[in-house]
Amino acid sequence: MKALTYHAPKDIRFESIPDAKVTKPHAALVRVRACGICGSDLHIYQGHGFSDDVGFCIGHEAVGEIVEIGASVETLKVGDEVMISAAVGCGRCAACRAGDAVRCTNNATGCYGLSHALPGCQAEAVMVPHADQNAAIIPDGLSHEQALMLTDNLPTAYLGALNADIRPGGTVAVVGLGPIGLMAVEIAFVLGASRVFAVDLVAERRAMAERLGAVALPPGDERAVLKELTQGLLADSVVEAVGADATLKLALGLAGKQGTVSTIGVNQTKQFPFPMALAFNKGLTFRTSLCSVVKHWPELVPMVRNGRLKPEQFISHRMPLSGGAHAYALFNDRRDGAMKMVLTC
Amino acid sequence: MKALTYHAPKDIRFESIPDAKVTKPHAALVRVRACGICGSDLHIYQGHGFSDDVGFCIGHEAVGEIVEIGASVETLKVGDEVMISAAVGCGRCAACRAGDAVRCTNNATGCYGLSHALPGCQAEAVMVPHADQNAAIIPDGLSHEQALMLTDNLPTAYLGALNADIRPGGTVAVVGLGPIGLMAVEIAFVLGASRVFAVDLVAERRAMAERLGAVALPPGDERAVLKELTQGLLADSVVEAVGADATLKLALGLAGKQGTVSTIGVNQTKQFPFPMALAFNKGLTFRTSLCSVVKHWPELVPMVRNGRLKPEQFISHRMPLSGGAHAYALFNDRRDGAMKMVLTC
Amino acid sequence: MKALTYHAPKDIRFESIPDAKVTKPHAALVRVRACGICGSDLHIYQGHGFSDDVGFCIGHEAVGEIVEIGASVETLKVGDEVMISAAVGCGRCAACRAGDAVRCTNNATGCYGLSHALPGCQAEAVMVPHADQNAAIIPDGLSHEQALMLTDNLPTAYLGALNADIRPGGTVAVVGLGPIGLMAVEIAFVLGASRVFAVDLVAERRAMAERLGAVALPPGDERAVLKELTQGLLADSVVEAVGADATLKLALGLAGKQGTVSTIGVNQTKQFPFPMALAFNKGLTFRTSLCSVVKHWPELVPMVRNGRLKPEQFISHRMPLSGGAHAYALFNDRRDGAMKMVLTC
Amino acid sequence: MKALTYHAPKDIRFESIPDAKVTKPHAALVRVRACGICGSDLHIYQGHGFSDDVGFCIGHEAVGEIVEIGASVETLKVGDEVMISAAVGCGRCAACRAGDAVRCTNNATGCYGLSHALPGCQAEAVMVPHADQNAAIIPDGLSHEQALMLTDNLPTAYLGALNADIRPGGTVAVVGLGPIGLMAVEIAFVLGASRVFAVDLVAERRAMAERLGAVALPPGDERAVLKELTQGLLADSVVEAVGADATLKLALGLAGKQGTVSTIGVNQTKQFPFPMALAFNKGLTFRTSLCSVVKHWPELVPMVRNGRLKPEQFISHRMPLSGGAHAYALFNDRRDGAMKMVLTC
Repeated sequence: MKALTYHAPKDIRFESIPDAKVTKPHAALVRVRACGICGSDLHIYQGHGFSDDVGFCIGHEAVGEIVEIGASVETLKVGDEVMISAAVGCGRCAACRAGDAVRCTNNATGCYGLSHALPGCQAEAVMVPHADQNAAIIPDGLSHEQALMLTDNLPTAYLGALNADIRPGGTVAVVGLGPIGLMAVEIAFVLGASRVFAVDLVAERRAMAERLGAVALPPGDERAVLKELTQGLLADSVVEAVGADATLKLALGLAGKQGTVSTIGVNQTKQFPFPMALAFNKGLTFRTSLCSVVKHWPELVPMVRNGRLKPEQFISHRMPLSGGAHAYALFNDRRDGAMKMVLTC
Repeated sequence: MKALTYHAPKDIRFESIPDAKVTKPHAALVRVRACGICGSDLHIYQGHGFSDDVGFCIGHEAVGEIVEIGASVETLKVGDEVMISAAVGCGRCAACRAGDAVRCTNNATGCYGLSHALPGCQAEAVMVPHADQNAAIIPDGLSHEQALMLTDNLPTAYLGALNADIRPGGTVAVVGLGPIGLMAVEIAFVLGASRVFAVDLVAERRAMAERLGAVALPPGDERAVLKELTQGLLADSVVEAVGADATLKLALGLAGKQGTVSTIGVNQTKQFPFPMALAFNKGLTFRTSLCSVVKHWPELVPMVRNGRLKPEQFISHRMPLSGGAHAYALFNDRRDGAMKMVLTC
Repeated sequence: MKALTYHAPKDIRFESIPDAKVTKPHAALVRVRACGICGSDLHIYQGHGFSDDVGFCIGHEAVGEIVEIGASVETLKVGDEVMISAAVGCGRCAACRAGDAVRCTNNATGCYGLSHALPGCQAEAVMVPHADQNAAIIPDGLSHEQALMLTDNLPTAYLGALNADIRPGGTVAVVGLGPIGLMAVEIAFVLGASRVFAVDLVAERRAMAERLGAVALPPGDERAVLKELTQGLLADSVVEAVGADATLKLALGLAGKQGTVSTIGVNQTKQFPFPMALAFNKGLTFRTSLCSVVKHWPELVPMVRNGRLKPEQFISHRMPLSGGAHAYALFNDRRDGAMKMVLTC
Repeated sequence: MKALTYHAPKDIRFESIPDAKVTKPHAALVRVRACGICGSDLHIYQGHGFSDDVGFCIGHEAVGEIVEIGASVETLKVGDEVMISAAVGCGRCAACRAGDAVRCTNNATGCYGLSHALPGCQAEAVMVPHADQNAAIIPDGLSHEQALMLTDNLPTAYLGALNADIRPGGTVAVVGLGPIGLMAVEIAFVLGASRVFAVDLVAERRAMAERLGAVALPPGDERAVLKELTQGLLADSVVEAVGADATLKLALGLAGKQGTVSTIGVNQTKQFPFPMALAFNKGLTFRTSLCSVVKHWPELVPMVRNGRLKPEQFISHRMPLSGGAHAYALFNDRRDGAMKMVLTC
């Protein structure tokens, strides 16, 4: 079958790989209809991925049709259109059965497309282990594109917002306005924020946040302006959706007394210079997170279905899987207004 | 001074009473600019009030100007425009100092205008005990009418909604679409509800709820239609904002498994026939509440200031205090589209 | 195989019934080693059970050894010693997979031994549907008797205590000191209660509660004494573990301002005379509950393993399954200090 | 009057300073009966305090008798025996009135004895600003020593434990077994911990923790042993009660997946090398905190009164105020089993 594979930094290829297949009784084979490129795929693209492998199929966001199921699969059947959770656990422990793969007590938390261990889904087909746990029929009323956003990005943004302790009436700042950051802006309002402040270097992205109701802060002067607009109180909740040390530092500075900073953006720094004195004086809470995806579907599905969240609005490009290399380049360089990239096959 | 007084069922008079004055060092005298008629004032108007007194000044919602303060008042000064909490406690215990008058450990929780004990504020002036605790300068950016809604109705609706355990993505039903019920509809969305269903016998009120984004249920057929629209799940959260036994019974029927029913409407039934078997099978939570008002200002003020809640939209009539008797009659009879009645002086 | 069956009020028989067997791929057959008689079994024994069936095998608490598994069972194997959840759901929906059978969205929440629909486990063997979800290997360090208490009673008492909003430093009252009520006393302390007050008509049971650290209230004078001992504040949290109207009424009276009353005892009254006026004046929360069992194992297992909870201390009798009819009689009549009855086979 | 003053590192003097007096209507003068030396006083003693002042009166923990009150004080009178909150705010904003001084919106959060700004209470008398907010009559049933522990140490330990998200059944590690760390051990059990692991270099302190029910981890090998004892899961909650970079690093390593690390020990490092990659992989929450003291009295007073917490057991020395310099030296050098040092006058 055809798939996108990673070979070297900035070298993504559309090529043939061995067919995905069902090898265990609990697995299912899904014919991919649409897959997304995630911000964390860019870590791989840029050459600082999560393994030393090369030649593996990349991608962890997909929707498609079940074409084969193992003997033990109970809740799915051939022909079902499904959305696949990016997060995968052992599928057997209590945490995994509860849809909370990142708490897997068998230490089997994983993800598609990070290495050869679990092939990715930027491909014509993908094998889903423990399909009963890790995939679900696309709920009535949801489009394939909405469902695709539920496989990773929207739950990740949602958890990031929850982790920021956003409360009714609260003041929120979101640092980094890629697809997940913009979703966090939208979610902050759904969680009752009275004001959301938006931070990004790219004017176009700040403008998108303002269309969602946020107030953009001027680059380079974020803290001073936020302080002024909040009578010195700064933000109750800060969501950092980049993952760089500089944005993390900025995020910590935007938080007010007893505030919470939630970082979504994957940051693999070994020794980030954390300002303890500042954190103490403010009484900060700082949260990192990996998202279990499935756990958040019961809340997110009705919000998308009823139009409270419109994650599909952040899709900027729809391209064929064969054009994947180009899509990666556009997204990586933020060219052509690239936001969420969707590949179809 | 002039004031509205209660004499007998449907007998509200605009007449002279002794001037309000500051009698304790912690008290303040407020020249009333605007006051509201609350649904619970109708209990008094209809003759089943909270005491046997007659001739007392009625009303517990007001904003106005400080014209005199006692020697111990610290946070207010003459000339300040203030909003007054309808709930009043001892002002001294830990609960009262925290703005949580209904938990007053000295059992001094009270309210203006229920008897001669604490004269009401549908008057030219009102004495506010423990003014530092029980009143606050109207925050910048809030109109007097918005502030007036913060003295009782909006906090009451907000607590009622919180008590219904409304969660992101949840399904909510609101029974009774007077001003507080409609505010509960608006608040339900702010708390993340994916869908809000609205119940009232009056078509015009259901139409108002639909303009707020709710789905109205047909009178007499509420449960069946809700069941159909929710695939049998019914509502996660139900807010009952009437206080009658019939609406309470309906509310309990609209709740789904593990649901919560929150009743705001004052119900003084001694033996309400509670359906225990039903409650058990559903695993229901049932909550009553009295609202401490001040406690909720930190969350509500920014929501009103930033337009997330627009409680002033529910004001239907603005009349002079001298026309109070007429205002009561309109509100009681639901004539002329009477919703929130505001009296000015 | 041999089993206990229900035929008529006070007519429990030890007799032969058809062998239990594995009929579905997800099911397992468990050779029962020990089973318990639950307070709710007495509803059946007394003739006001949950169906009109007769001749069915009764009982819903058991531990034992897996002797056969269906082809789809993943986490269990023949020879495993397991504890079986009394609550059973569809096993497939998201709620059931998360161990929350009472929220089963397929409305399949059930229990062993209430009718012929799902045969009981006071038998030599029992078929466990969806065994991966509804049973678990007895954790290391737990005795069979401890595990047996985890199949229903302890999780039920725990949920009842959680539902009473027991908080650190809080004052708790427990009404009804059968096995579950006594467990609730023990749990209240684990949840941080500063004082626990215990109510029962039987002096011996009050003495047991006092040995757990509670203060017993004198029968007939509970409210007055509680009021005096709490300087008028009464209890923050009340757990009702009987299910009778009289004890429910008492429980509501023992709650203080903004208190919570949680009822565990199954009450099937159609029209319980609920004191709305009292509830309003206090601002009460009232919660009923059915327990999902499996959901609470991750918290309860370590508490039992490390001796923070000792549910096995409430076992008063250990008898052979063949003596089941006698065990029922003793328990029903509260004879011979009957508390938790365990039958072995 | 006589007082302890700070002059230079390790130079604490018992000398005469101007008499404390009531200078504002809301203030009270307290004749100190007992005061404590806090771990954070050692920061000053060691020369890295919170200001450049010298010659100021030190100390922020005291109980004593009201000897004079300002005209606006309502809840206290001359002769009352009171406990004084170490944390002081403006006394006027909503947060301060609610006993939450560290959220003071007037940015007036402060503490006694850090500089000349607010003289300390290791003195014969101390002036308490906004005495209604910042002091309270010692509750019935509490000794003066118990009350003294409520002025700072116990609330600080309690908040530190709450901030660690300790849950029923959870596994807790406490790093640093000074008085606050040991109190955190005791509190962890009250909050439902199933197991508490204790870390300190001093064998005697580890032995004290074991007497409280904890399991001590061997110095230098803490993480490996914890991992083994928890089957690889490590701790759900970690309380760090030292404030050094090394202990903070250790604490982060002891936390398991989705764990929370709460640091109580004041750490003024500008750039602590925070292990972001580790935090991400674990999904950690990290919390710092300053304690509002008064806010936690409603929960802590009943726990102390009813013997659930026994903070007075950590008092190792009782000495006269005149011996303060010696007491500081003992505490600083951990000599003679120095734990909590209490000075009387």
